[in-house]
Amino acid sequence: MIKAVVEIRLKKGVLDAQGQAIGEVLDQYDVDGVERVRVGKLVELSFATTDNIEEQVEALCDQLLVNHEMEEYSYRLEERGDE
Amino acid sequence: MIKAVVEIRLKKGVLDAQGQAIGEVLDQYDVDGVERVRVGKLVELSFATTDNIEEQVEALCDQLLVNHEMEEYSYRLEERGDE
Repeated sequence: MIKAVVEIRLKKGVLDAQGQAIGEVLDQYDVDGVERVRVGKLVELSFATTDNIEEQVEALCDQLLVNHEMEEYSYRLEERGDE
Repeated sequence: MIKAVVEIRLKKGVLDAQGQAIGEVLDQYDVDGVERVRVGKLVELSFATTDNIEEQVEALCDQLLVNHEMEEYSYRLEERGDE
């Protein structure tokens, strides 16, 4: 089975309220090393076939999963034996 | 600048309502190849320093970002020149 791991991020310049909220908590806890926090989505698609996976992932991202006004995505494919 | 990309997933067996909802939409659209959809979180932490990054990431995940009852995480480090 092949799993596509899709990482969906807010585009640069789009307000990330969740990331800001985490950043403020880090400030309260005196965590100094972290300069910026951005929060995105992780979508894992498990495929039963091995045909045209890239094509299917890109079609799903373009048409359904990603809001192209505000988000951008990247993905990788992983082979999974056990699931 | 070093960026830690943290992928947070629901543990096996934990109900993933978002993933199910996407799966149902795929069924409606007659997308056959996808067998399962799971939705998780992506948290990107940009560090100003290069010291003890792993340690800091793991502490933040353990104490703040991850609900260990329901979630598990993995992360990778990326070097970013421009941001």
